Amino acid sequence: MSLSFPLNREHFERLDRDDPLCDSRALFDLPSGEIYLDGNSLGAMPAHVPARLERVLKQEWAHGLIRSWNDADWYPAPQRTGGKIARLIGAGAEEVIVADSTSINLFKVLVAATRMRPGRKVILGENGNFPTDVYVASGVAELTGCELRCVEPEQVLEALTEDVAILSLTHVNYKSGRRYDMAAITARAHEVGALVVWDLCHSAGAMPIDLNGSQADFAVGCGYKYLNGGPGAPAFVYVAERHIPHVRQPLTGWHGHARPFAFSHDYEAHPTIDRMLVGTAPQLGVLALEAALEVFDGVDMQVLRKKSVALCDLFIQLCDERLAGLGVELRSPRDAEQRGSQVSLAHADAYPVMQALIARGVIGDFRAPDILRFGFAPLYNRYVDIWDSVQALREVLESGEWNRPEFIARKSVT
Amino acid sequence: MSLSFPLNREHFERLDRDDPLCDSRALFDLPSGEIYLDGNSLGAMPAHVPARLERVLKQEWAHGLIRSWNDADWYPAPQRTGGKIARLIGAGAEEVIVADSTSINLFKVLVAATRMRPGRKVILGENGNFPTDVYVASGVAELTGCELRCVEPEQVLEALTEDVAILSLTHVNYKSGRRYDMAAITARAHEVGALVVWDLCHSAGAMPIDLNGSQADFAVGCGYKYLNGGPGAPAFVYVAERHIPHVRQPLTGWHGHARPFAFSHDYEAHPTIDRMLVGTAPQLGVLALEAALEVFDGVDMQVLRKKSVALCDLFIQLCDERLAGLGVELRSPRDAEQRGSQVSLAHADAYPVMQALIARGVIGDFRAPDILRFGFAPLYNRYVDIWDSVQALREVLESGEWNRPEFIARKSVT
Repeated sequence: MSLSFPLNREHFERLDRDDPLCDSRALFDLPSGEIYLDGNSLGAMPAHVPARLERVLKQEWAHGLIRSWNDADWYPAPQRTGGKIARLIGAGAEEVIVADSTSINLFKVLVAATRMRPGRKVILGENGNFPTDVYVASGVAELTGCELRCVEPEQVLEALTEDVAILSLTHVNYKSGRRYDMAAITARAHEVGALVVWDLCHSAGAMPIDLNGSQADFAVGCGYKYLNGGPGAPAFVYVAERHIPHVRQPLTGWHGHARPFAFSHDYEAHPTIDRMLVGTAPQLGVLALEAALEVFDGVDMQVLRKKSVALCDLFIQLCDERLAGLGVELRSPRDAEQRGSQVSLAHADAYPVMQALIARGVIGDFRAPDILRFGFAPLYNRYVDIWDSVQALREVLESGEWNRPEFIARKSVT
Repeated sequence: MSLSFPLNREHFERLDRDDPLCDSRALFDLPSGEIYLDGNSLGAMPAHVPARLERVLKQEWAHGLIRSWNDADWYPAPQRTGGKIARLIGAGAEEVIVADSTSINLFKVLVAATRMRPGRKVILGENGNFPTDVYVASGVAELTGCELRCVEPEQVLEALTEDVAILSLTHVNYKSGRRYDMAAITARAHEVGALVVWDLCHSAGAMPIDLNGSQADFAVGCGYKYLNGGPGAPAFVYVAERHIPHVRQPLTGWHGHARPFAFSHDYEAHPTIDRMLVGTAPQLGVLALEAALEVFDGVDMQVLRKKSVALCDLFIQLCDERLAGLGVELRSPRDAEQRGSQVSLAHADAYPVMQALIARGVIGDFRAPDILRFGFAPLYNRYVDIWDSVQALREVLESGEWNRPEFIARKSVT
């Protein structure tokens, strides 16, 4: 094949020098001598987060104590942090709140949505979705007397029939990086009277998203991937403004109450997005996420997307060129329009190959059964990382060094 | 009335010198010049927590990155931390796990319990329970087609009829500090074939609890009160070993799956207590809680309870003596056997009185409509704190200084 760029590292160094986002990398604390291509699993740490957390602990908790719920503005942190995420996903600040985990938020919106379509009994899902999405939907189906109907991704549009209450999809697939056309699918679902729940775990913070422009109904997403909120960071939930007054979510905890500190006996949902809250917010996680989001301040998400596409395209082209005949096959869409910010490669021995690559300081991850997964975070990944990581992968494959016991033994978390 | 002790501060200083727990206070970072009697709302910070969190952030997250799920043992942290709590509540280490919030854990066990009693349709609750317990139970009742029947606390035993599927009670009441006889009530519930869910928010870490000895079925509790896990710390959930294989909780997220990293399409509950997990654990909160629990290492919970009773008894006796005629009325049981580790006083102007007291450096809290609430944490509260806080309250009431605009204006969190 013919390459559109010169096959040397200098070309990639030049791209870094010309990168309008090149200053963002310095905002992160990254391990030296390593290339991190797993920000789609756990985002890197913005360097200012520890100082913020230290203040939270030593001043706000230790010395402010209970007063900090008011005096340090802990109480409105889920709303404030949701508002910061809203800009990244094309939502109004009052439509997004930070709470709990993605799985739990998905449960809330799925049950709430079935209640908004009482005559319908089908939750339409997709095969190959991230497992928790399917597991949670099946749990909701059992509780609400619905049927969970899963189809292949390419059959989603035709499966949208008049009996579908909810369509539950993940915007960018965790394994392949395939991206749905959010606006077109939402429009088609609305034509048949269905509501749509979008899981943004693998797209929020990695590209511009236009929930409002797509007339999206509900969305959930993760705080610890491209949003860099830290391990197990709280998730977010979006409810379109037009739906908020009608949403009755089933996890009726006191923080979702209209007047939590009236301590009344009967539940009354808060009139705003606050009704999606349940218990006390996990403050350390919320405040770390809030601080982490500052790295997006002033970032034009179109510029970020342009770099993301360039990184992925270059990675794919280099793999084509440098890994030919080494048993690797592209499993992500070649067309950037249909792709998120990751590239997945299949290899028969993907698990030990990835371990050997990590031992060389190039950190991607493995997804069962045979996927090498590389996520590209435009705020801290460089163009030279593309060159160096493909080079390292080539050496791992050519040398066969992955075929060692220490790389073959499986760890509990992959 | 006749006091059982001399009415001077020296007596309380002497009690502190003789206190077998007197060394524990130094394990906490407390604001100087203040008395903190609100550990039943947000526990004080163990002084070593910031160093642990700094390591989590700067080493494990920033430099270990995704590898830390294995290499820093993040993944088993919910189990490990649950195991540490188990000792404090009379449970086996394999019966307790840390996850989500109290409200969410309550939802899980209530739905799971209704599924274990399919022929019965009543969830029995209590009036005056902490609101989230009632709200969540009403949400579960609606979802599962059950009836939530709430009775006065003293009517619970007679309300245990053969149609009751679940009895849902809080061990120590948040407002009055009244404590139920866990063993007797559980035994009576079992006689009529009901399962019991105990909320331990106001007792875990404040006294010995004997879940196993009481044949308790399920329990939930809070990480941020007497367990000192920090603001919004994750909660815990207990399932009796005999029930674990039969528990089908409705929040079927991937971390509760038998093999989360197989990424299979169908949900299969983990064979152990892990099935109570949902999404990725909020690691910053879990690891802070795990570290915080070290202050209980080597603590004999019977000794801790003895001090708790002494603190509360002395506080009540001093209030009787020093606050007579100042409009204050005891709202907690006088009998320590029926009381947790807090004392509640009613006063017509409780809100501004508490604000004025806080301004004097004695931090308790207010609970609507008229309660001054004082929690006693035996690991860091001293006997002199009792003397000094009653003295301060007397001065606030005698002077009428609470009757100022800055104390009357309500804050959003009370």
